[in-house]
Amino acid sequence: MARIICAGLGPGDPDLISVKSDRIIRAGQTIAYFRKAGKRGQARQIVEGMLRADAVELAMEYPVTTEILFNTPEYNDILAHFYDGWAERLVALPGEVVVLCEGDPFFYGSFMHLYTRLQGRVDIDVIPGITGMTGCWNATGVPITWGDDVMTVLMATLPEADLVQHMGQSDALVIMKTGRNLPKVRRALEAAGRLDAAWLVERGTMPKQRVMKLADLDDSDTPYFAIVLVHGHGRRPEIAE
Amino acid sequence: MARIICAGLGPGDPDLISVKSDRIIRAGQTIAYFRKAGKRGQARQIVEGMLRADAVELAMEYPVTTEILFNTPEYNDILAHFYDGWAERLVALPGEVVVLCEGDPFFYGSFMHLYTRLQGRVDIDVIPGITGMTGCWNATGVPITWGDDVMTVLMATLPEADLVQHMGQSDALVIMKTGRNLPKVRRALEAAGRLDAAWLVERGTMPKQRVMKLADLDDSDTPYFAIVLVHGHGRRPEIAE
Repeated sequence: MARIICAGLGPGDPDLISVKSDRIIRAGQTIAYFRKAGKRGQARQIVEGMLRADAVELAMEYPVTTEILFNTPEYNDILAHFYDGWAERLVALPGEVVVLCEGDPFFYGSFMHLYTRLQGRVDIDVIPGITGMTGCWNATGVPITWGDDVMTVLMATLPEADLVQHMGQSDALVIMKTGRNLPKVRRALEAAGRLDAAWLVERGTMPKQRVMKLADLDDSDTPYFAIVLVHGHGRRPEIAE
Repeated sequence: MARIICAGLGPGDPDLISVKSDRIIRAGQTIAYFRKAGKRGQARQIVEGMLRADAVELAMEYPVTTEILFNTPEYNDILAHFYDGWAERLVALPGEVVVLCEGDPFFYGSFMHLYTRLQGRVDIDVIPGITGMTGCWNATGVPITWGDDVMTVLMATLPEADLVQHMGQSDALVIMKTGRNLPKVRRALEAAGRLDAAWLVERGTMPKQRVMKLADLDDSDTPYFAIVLVHGHGRRPEIAE
């Protein structure tokens, strides 16, 4: 019976992987990871040069990405079959499988869909990782939260009105899954009066990292793997002038 | 002139420190860390056994902890002088100083108060870490956010009415700085209809870690170093029955 170890990879820089994940990835005999069909895959990219020469790699290729709308029953069924199938394949393996997972596995991670299917059937260890958002706010060189700041994490896939409402009620903001939703995110931030304070971090902690004010982004520019941030400005002890 | 490297330590388990922080801590000639007066200090505890035998340690002891209310001008002034003083001491050192910081340095971290004082005066490198909340939600064995879930991070020091309002508007919740505010957090979660879904993680990823449903906590029980969590239950592809 298989034993599954999900190794959180952190935000992208291999030097930011935890000591524990690093050790387990380097020792792994069987290494599995999700990727888009036809791509190398972000997770696999992060561990380049770390795997054993005789490691067996299992690329779990998503059956669909953006061809079908994510909120349709059809998309749900295709993905459910995909996760069901890989759960059965992993559980049938004789040895230990290391599943790579970008960021932290329990924070919007794909591994969670295998985890719920495998729980109680095999031993599963999950090793936390530095979240992508943590890598991105560090990349801005500005602390994200102070004192009593409220921080809210939003997916750009949410309805625009919901985004505006949350953006107006929180001190610090993290907006993920931006992609083609970036124009909606900009409109929502503007409506909430937060656009001038918003930063965009593309490929945080990775090669070709780009950090800029969101308002300076050209309309024709379509950043890849990007997170939008608004920093909090809470209580901080300073001597009055 | 000094060079400052702030090494994020992660949630507590030394095995969850990043490869980069681990390397820099083990090589550090001068190691500084915050702690309460009279205590060993959480940051120092995490790196036990990792420091060079000849490392010079600088314990930056908080001048006050809970004797004075945190929102008074008196408290503000005392802390401002404390951070001002240490910023001057560090900048006057000749070599490289490694400042230890629990969790991630830019997420509600004490180092930020030195950072803003030292920026532009010395070279500063900040190495991200796994946040305490990430260690805690992993400790529950339950993913914290799925699909489009909204996650909000709240400080238990906020007014009760503010807590209730935010708790009712977010899918996943993280409540930090619980301590003596735990009864207020319980009341607010109950008012928001979320108490039954709330977990308490004490000393996440550390020795004597405790994970339990918050509703099961005895009134006389005062957990130390605890975070309260409510998990999101967003979109996940499953085959309909």
